[in-house]
Amino acid sequence: MKRILISALVLLLAGWSMAAADNEDGSRLWLRLDNANATATITGVKGTAMTELQTYWQGGPVVLKRQKGMGQDGYTIKSQGGKTLITAANDAGLLYGAYHLLRLQQTGQSCEGLDIKEQPAYDLRILNHWDNPNGTVERGFAGKSIFLNPDPVRMKTYARANASIGINGTVLNNVNASPQALSTESLQKAKGIADQLRPYGIRVYLSINFASPIKLGGLKTADPLNAEVISWWKDKVNEIYRLIPDFGGFLVKANSEGEPGPQDFGRTHADGANMLAEVLRPHKGIVMWRAFVYAPQSNDRANQAYLEFMPLDGQFADNVIIQIKNGPIDFQPREPYSPLFTAMQKTPMMVEFQITQEYLGAANHLVYLAPMWKEFFSFVKPASLKAMAGVANIGDDINWCGHHFAQANWYAFGRLAWNPQLSSKEIAEEWLTQTFSLQGNNKSEMLSVMLDSREACVSYMMPLGIHHIFAGTHHYGPEPWYAPKGVRADWTPPYYHKADAVGLGFDRTTTGSGNVKQYPETLCQLYNDINSCPENLLTWFHHVPWDYRMKSGRTFWDELCHKYDEGVHATRRFLAVWDAMQPYVDSQRFNEVQHKLRIQARDAEWWRDACLLYFQTFSHRPIPQDVEHPVHNLDEMMQFKIRIGMYENPESGYTK
Amino acid sequence: MKRILISALVLLLAGWSMAAADNEDGSRLWLRLDNANATATITGVKGTAMTELQTYWQGGPVVLKRQKGMGQDGYTIKSQGGKTLITAANDAGLLYGAYHLLRLQQTGQSCEGLDIKEQPAYDLRILNHWDNPNGTVERGFAGKSIFLNPDPVRMKTYARANASIGINGTVLNNVNASPQALSTESLQKAKGIADQLRPYGIRVYLSINFASPIKLGGLKTADPLNAEVISWWKDKVNEIYRLIPDFGGFLVKANSEGEPGPQDFGRTHADGANMLAEVLRPHKGIVMWRAFVYAPQSNDRANQAYLEFMPLDGQFADNVIIQIKNGPIDFQPREPYSPLFTAMQKTPMMVEFQITQEYLGAANHLVYLAPMWKEFFSFVKPASLKAMAGVANIGDDINWCGHHFAQANWYAFGRLAWNPQLSSKEIAEEWLTQTFSLQGNNKSEMLSVMLDSREACVSYMMPLGIHHIFAGTHHYGPEPWYAPKGVRADWTPPYYHKADAVGLGFDRTTTGSGNVKQYPETLCQLYNDINSCPENLLTWFHHVPWDYRMKSGRTFWDELCHKYDEGVHATRRFLAVWDAMQPYVDSQRFNEVQHKLRIQARDAEWWRDACLLYFQTFSHRPIPQDVEHPVHNLDEMMQFKIRIGMYENPESGYTK
Repeated sequence: MKRILISALVLLLAGWSMAAADNEDGSRLWLRLDNANATATITGVKGTAMTELQTYWQGGPVVLKRQKGMGQDGYTIKSQGGKTLITAANDAGLLYGAYHLLRLQQTGQSCEGLDIKEQPAYDLRILNHWDNPNGTVERGFAGKSIFLNPDPVRMKTYARANASIGINGTVLNNVNASPQALSTESLQKAKGIADQLRPYGIRVYLSINFASPIKLGGLKTADPLNAEVISWWKDKVNEIYRLIPDFGGFLVKANSEGEPGPQDFGRTHADGANMLAEVLRPHKGIVMWRAFVYAPQSNDRANQAYLEFMPLDGQFADNVIIQIKNGPIDFQPREPYSPLFTAMQKTPMMVEFQITQEYLGAANHLVYLAPMWKEFFSFVKPASLKAMAGVANIGDDINWCGHHFAQANWYAFGRLAWNPQLSSKEIAEEWLTQTFSLQGNNKSEMLSVMLDSREACVSYMMPLGIHHIFAGTHHYGPEPWYAPKGVRADWTPPYYHKADAVGLGFDRTTTGSGNVKQYPETLCQLYNDINSCPENLLTWFHHVPWDYRMKSGRTFWDELCHKYDEGVHATRRFLAVWDAMQPYVDSQRFNEVQHKLRIQARDAEWWRDACLLYFQTFSHRPIPQDVEHPVHNLDEMMQFKIRIGMYENPESGYTK
Repeated sequence: MKRILISALVLLLAGWSMAAADNEDGSRLWLRLDNANATATITGVKGTAMTELQTYWQGGPVVLKRQKGMGQDGYTIKSQGGKTLITAANDAGLLYGAYHLLRLQQTGQSCEGLDIKEQPAYDLRILNHWDNPNGTVERGFAGKSIFLNPDPVRMKTYARANASIGINGTVLNNVNASPQALSTESLQKAKGIADQLRPYGIRVYLSINFASPIKLGGLKTADPLNAEVISWWKDKVNEIYRLIPDFGGFLVKANSEGEPGPQDFGRTHADGANMLAEVLRPHKGIVMWRAFVYAPQSNDRANQAYLEFMPLDGQFADNVIIQIKNGPIDFQPREPYSPLFTAMQKTPMMVEFQITQEYLGAANHLVYLAPMWKEFFSFVKPASLKAMAGVANIGDDINWCGHHFAQANWYAFGRLAWNPQLSSKEIAEEWLTQTFSLQGNNKSEMLSVMLDSREACVSYMMPLGIHHIFAGTHHYGPEPWYAPKGVRADWTPPYYHKADAVGLGFDRTTTGSGNVKQYPETLCQLYNDINSCPENLLTWFHHVPWDYRMKSGRTFWDELCHKYDEGVHATRRFLAVWDAMQPYVDSQRFNEVQHKLRIQARDAEWWRDACLLYFQTFSHRPIPQDVEHPVHNLDEMMQFKIRIGMYENPESGYTK
């Protein structure tokens, strides 16, 4: 009888705990410590750090202590005999220390005998939200803007999540900015958000439309040297700081893809940026001025940011930071780094990474991006930058990012902005342990999936240096053939791949577009010679003959076929590995991720088949027999369209 | 100058011959000898044999000689010193001899020193067309009926193709027969066709509606023992023979799937068949009476033909042949043979094979059926049968059969009806050499594709004895879950697969439906014991536990997963092999076959994923890691529908 009772109790408890585990929907992100078990006594500096520890810390007593002489946001953690001391120069530092401690606890590490000293690599670790006034999110694949009708509970999770990984700034609106972003109504709303984020050490910033003085202010010009214009900006900035005393500053996309800018008034980027910088200076605000510019008439889009900004090197005010995308084109699965980073010597720079997967399968593909960002840092010294920005992948989807594993990219961005020396694996392991509670071999298997995922994506989308062969109306699927009449050439794939009877690729050598010359001499020589150019950038820099002999011994064409097929097989492996996690993962998240991985595996086939069959019309060479052969027809694929805009995640890929 | 001229000439000729080769559209079937090169002198018996040889034979003189004492349709061929003699008892025999000779020539074999004697295994080698009066073809996937508006050129090719492989009879209309098939207008049309086919030794037959005396004749009954009814049939038959003096007889589907029959009037199949037989007897006509019967109330559809026909064994007139489908259910990818074949001892029987791929991927899948028919003959002695019928896969598509490789099934049916001892490989090689002119390794590769294709189809559709889990509204794709309320159970897949928490399969053992008892004792024992039952029929005869240990050492569930996946991989191999044929095959046929093989590869995935994911909801076991995991979602697959009727070939398979 007693044994039956115990058995029943065990079953009941097991059932309960499974039910609890089964209740996961991803809304808690990686912050999955149960607040029901908090036990400890927290003393010292009152504030958010104390509240967080009081709510979640399950260890012995913690003392929070302010200590001068430490760098901004840095902290120390020391523990002995069950007691822990966190010191920092400011509240934010204490908060970061508290989250560090909680992370150790959540990942099951020892919190005894700690002697930690942390200092972030950058003072500014900032998210860029591309959110529009109507609630859509440009290149957002996780629902609508979280700022449209900010829900206090969600805002708190958003703030906690960011603070837990060290993010301390957020640009609330799209770089393609509506002038209305600076209307009094909008600013009131921004103030509300700022008030909710402030306790977590997060400042708000706004993207501005450079023509705001005209469109919002009713002036006749937005010439940055015009006194009325300057005055208008001063008034507007004063208005902002009255509402948001710790407002961070402006992010500006100017004279780019149709956005207004100082060039419209005969002025330079420096003129424009410096005017705003001077207006913001009294308030300690900054200007982040984007270098993402290109004109249709250029012979090589990759050359243009350099050509436009290098002459201005040294002309920017000291509270301007030039925000440069990691690569010279636009967030492709693989690009070389933007040569501006090593060329500009007298200008503060920051890198803009894209966390949202505009070009990496949106919220359908599992692609862990830390390896891509680490690749960037293997060329660009972290210390040469002032800050790091990441275009957010956050929306009002219940799981925030559309794909549960896309949360890892938000996480990784924050961790790398704090410390670019962390390895992709360390970060993935931290995130995976917190987010999915996987152990042992399961964790290793899923780690290998995450770590291999970006290279897999490159393989099935654009291996060997291929770039920007996306569909004309979305950046989700392949349309290497897209080139309708009247569309500017640099918005069509053939501009980039240049496939012909000879071969494939964009000749950017010294005898081609000369783009290699924008790189330091050693790299220039390396990239310029097809025999020394890294194969993963081969068609980026060279027009490669179909029969060019690769290091594998294969011809370039055969290698291309193999790469695409490797990508397909990798996605199938990811799916099989995940399927094996079913007993260890709560059911909703398991099923949702499985569904996405299935889409990814099918999409990888779509990419392989569309690209190989299309390029084959130029190469006239057979698909090798040891490669899986295309299972779709090119003519049918060319007729297929996904009807989505810039604000939607496609339900699925190729469906014909 | 001379060399240039020669080179130009070579190029010109090469260009011309390539253009010629590229002109192939499959309309010539396997009859691809060029009539421009005929050279020979043909003497002896005038007729079609002579005409064919005069038109196509490219060798020395041939003498055609009539010789008594030989069996019907048999022939001898003797050749020496460049001269050839063909002898036969009748014109048809001479024609078959002529085609034999032409086949040797077309397949590049020596025609010198021949000493051939051939005699067909069956006097009646007959196609069943399921063509409707409105031109649709039931389960036809190659366009409309060729008999709707018979084109003389097409009719001639049809006749030549049939005669070239020994087919000597054709039932012009659907077994689900319209009473109008016997209207004077229809008979006039049949006469026209008969006149066109007669020179090629082909007789026409008609399917009849048993209620014709009522529906066409205006009588109050179709009771076969009623004098008025008998009289009506006599008149009708006389009318037919006035038009078509060599009319073959009737094919009857009675009391089956809603068709009228003698049981509607309290009579037996024997009563009905014998009445018609007596009416036809003076004209030497025959009755082919189908044994395809089953009622919804039975506990096992597989039992029913036996139960209904065995009591009538010995009661049929001698010009009645019972036409029995090869398996006891309905043309599944794999069935055991119908036990009637070994049970009935006193009744003439013929087998009905289905050439059209109702259940084998329609005209989209490459499935060479000779191995399936040979499998049947490994259980049923050819000599125990009187005749062979095949449900045609012919329509007005330019290539006749929808899929170029489906022509091979028409071909194989004819060759096996002539000689069931021929191997699948011999027939495939004959056909492939004639139809695609492939040589050496290419031929071997494609032969292996053909020979493996039926087992591959079984694997990706219904391995290990699974049967009839097709979609409710078509028999193309999978719907193992299809079971809407109100649909008779034996028209839904769960009736057949019986998946549950224990396992999968239909228990037809002595303790189940008892179906095994319809087989001879040795087979009964073999099938009855799960441990001796051949694994390729395991779930046909047993409800197999998911963890049952297979000969491979795997559990049944794991084996099932492997089988499905093997099927998928086989289709990919077929595609890769075909792709390598591109330089050796004319472009139109190459592209059309490639397109179909791509569909097949995708459909195989559809089958695998739908079946494994659905059965997994019962097995609750993981897909093994060494198997490719499903890339579709079950819920989405269950919502997917192909909107086609019984008369259409689907454009593609799963598209979601």
